[in-house]
Amino acid sequence: MAGGIGSRFWPYSRNQHPKQFMDILGTGKSLLQMTYQRFLQITSSDRIYVVTNAEYGPLVHEHLPELDGSQVLLEPVRRNTAPCIAYASYKIAQRDPEAVMVVTPSDHFVGREERFFESIRTATEAARGGDRLITMGIQPTRPETGYGYIQYLTEEGEEGVQRVKTFTEKPEADLAQAFIESGDFVWNSGIFIWSVKSINQAFESFLPELADAFEERLESFYSPEEPQMIQEVYALCKNISIDYGVMEKAKNVYVVLADFDWSDLGSWHSMYDQREGKDEHGNVIDGNALLYQTTNSLVMGDKKRLIVTQGLDNYLVADCDDVLVICPLNAEASFRTFVSDVKAKKGPEYL
Amino acid sequence: MAGGIGSRFWPYSRNQHPKQFMDILGTGKSLLQMTYQRFLQITSSDRIYVVTNAEYGPLVHEHLPELDGSQVLLEPVRRNTAPCIAYASYKIAQRDPEAVMVVTPSDHFVGREERFFESIRTATEAARGGDRLITMGIQPTRPETGYGYIQYLTEEGEEGVQRVKTFTEKPEADLAQAFIESGDFVWNSGIFIWSVKSINQAFESFLPELADAFEERLESFYSPEEPQMIQEVYALCKNISIDYGVMEKAKNVYVVLADFDWSDLGSWHSMYDQREGKDEHGNVIDGNALLYQTTNSLVMGDKKRLIVTQGLDNYLVADCDDVLVICPLNAEASFRTFVSDVKAKKGPEYL
Repeated sequence: MAGGIGSRFWPYSRNQHPKQFMDILGTGKSLLQMTYQRFLQITSSDRIYVVTNAEYGPLVHEHLPELDGSQVLLEPVRRNTAPCIAYASYKIAQRDPEAVMVVTPSDHFVGREERFFESIRTATEAARGGDRLITMGIQPTRPETGYGYIQYLTEEGEEGVQRVKTFTEKPEADLAQAFIESGDFVWNSGIFIWSVKSINQAFESFLPELADAFEERLESFYSPEEPQMIQEVYALCKNISIDYGVMEKAKNVYVVLADFDWSDLGSWHSMYDQREGKDEHGNVIDGNALLYQTTNSLVMGDKKRLIVTQGLDNYLVADCDDVLVICPLNAEASFRTFVSDVKAKKGPEYL
Repeated sequence: MAGGIGSRFWPYSRNQHPKQFMDILGTGKSLLQMTYQRFLQITSSDRIYVVTNAEYGPLVHEHLPELDGSQVLLEPVRRNTAPCIAYASYKIAQRDPEAVMVVTPSDHFVGREERFFESIRTATEAARGGDRLITMGIQPTRPETGYGYIQYLTEEGEEGVQRVKTFTEKPEADLAQAFIESGDFVWNSGIFIWSVKSINQAFESFLPELADAFEERLESFYSPEEPQMIQEVYALCKNISIDYGVMEKAKNVYVVLADFDWSDLGSWHSMYDQREGKDEHGNVIDGNALLYQTTNSLVMGDKKRLIVTQGLDNYLVADCDDVLVICPLNAEASFRTFVSDVKAKKGPEYL
């Protein structure tokens, strides 16, 4: 899934260049490229599909030139994750009705990849072995209020595949603390594993209009009519997430308890946390800078410009094109305000 | 005097564009233009001479197109204020041996101009009335350690023209405090008033080599040979300030006690202090910015770029060309370090 927009990395993530296309981790690769290369270690390139908004089609091909046109699924409008996943699952089912699919965001951080691959193997085996909708749950390390939580039934399960009891969206701080203390909650990574048979059955049960729209048009997949067909389907779709539309309603939902390192990289602060190569004062410099009495800060700029800072602790300096943002590194809550104020007072050309 | 360089307004004051050519006060005029226009209120344009470094000649003519070539005195090298003033005083003496001259920096702030003009009148009358070297002393308003101080003899003087006892360069904080409390110290504004006869006599007494160098070449003034002659004189000159070379040695030194508003605009903080049009949180914005929880700060940038800040108090954000500086507004002591580090580590192209 590579269709997201996102204002939280503004001014770096412009409308024309959202986060999945950015080198957020300073590795020289975009998050999309890192995600693709991670999966190349356990599958072949021809089995990877990217769903994205039509406007990002050229960017996806630029970042992943190995993919052919049929592997880049273009959504004509944004309809959240349920239609996005259905597009892929019905298309894959046409090619291989017995396929097991892994659904993953393309803009997250995954560390300790061996453990990640092990969890993927556990999940794909469980999905192959029965009619199960499987999510990847991350062992929480702190009472994070920015993530969704999954509660699982400790008594039912085997080999780390547990039955899910509840999904909870981003909780308040005290609830998050209680989740951590209870020990039977994990973070919802947004990574799903299931057979295309199981997920398509679930669409029929819980989102029948969506399922019908695809099932009536299956012969158009892999044909020149596919874009037109998708246009029709998306005109009929409602905007709904896979969590709300399917996972919270289905009875056969399981979670694999994973312990790889993971972050949704949902904010400058989480990006800072994941960056390697901090200087002795805990600063991350991505660009050309001289820092004085500056600590635990993230300084990003074009290499052609020079940034000099003094007396900043825990700050973000993000200097990109025609916008400069200076704010506390944990000011993620402010970015919506920044972006809406900029749009209203300064003009959309800065977004 | 418009020959200064200055690193304290870096990155705005580049080597190619020092402070006197900047619109430091946000008035739409450079400090040089403001100084020129101030004196136009008490003299005529043809009686104004600008001494500057040869490399700034074109900039002076651009800022003051009314001046003809003979009014812009070009120094081939920097030799501090004594040779600079001697160049002007000997040149003016050739035109009018009875002239009284006012020597002034071109990059200072003067407020309450009526009082300034009154002090200039007092000083010029005193200079016309006898062989006196007169400085303009500013009533101090705080124990500033960035200024020089003049101690005067309270018992000798008339109509605000007092005999000078001592000059003191930038004092330590406790000494500055003692100066303020004693009541007989004023700030040294660097503005001087004297007849050309008096100052040239003083040069003969205290800097005879400098005086001789000019006196042997008087016929070259106002001729095509003047640049060549000045080249020769400056090759003979030593680098010395008027304060050290003349004022601290002469016996006929007086100070006019002035009470106009004055600042040497020697730092971003003093510039901030003098800027009008602060917002309700005490910020000065010169450029295109949105500020959140930002107070008592100075934010300067190109109008084409957008600056967003949050959580800064008493900060400078100076975004100019290919350099961005973010530091406490009172970090003037750091600018020498910034500039020397930038030169050594990043290259002189940023200066």
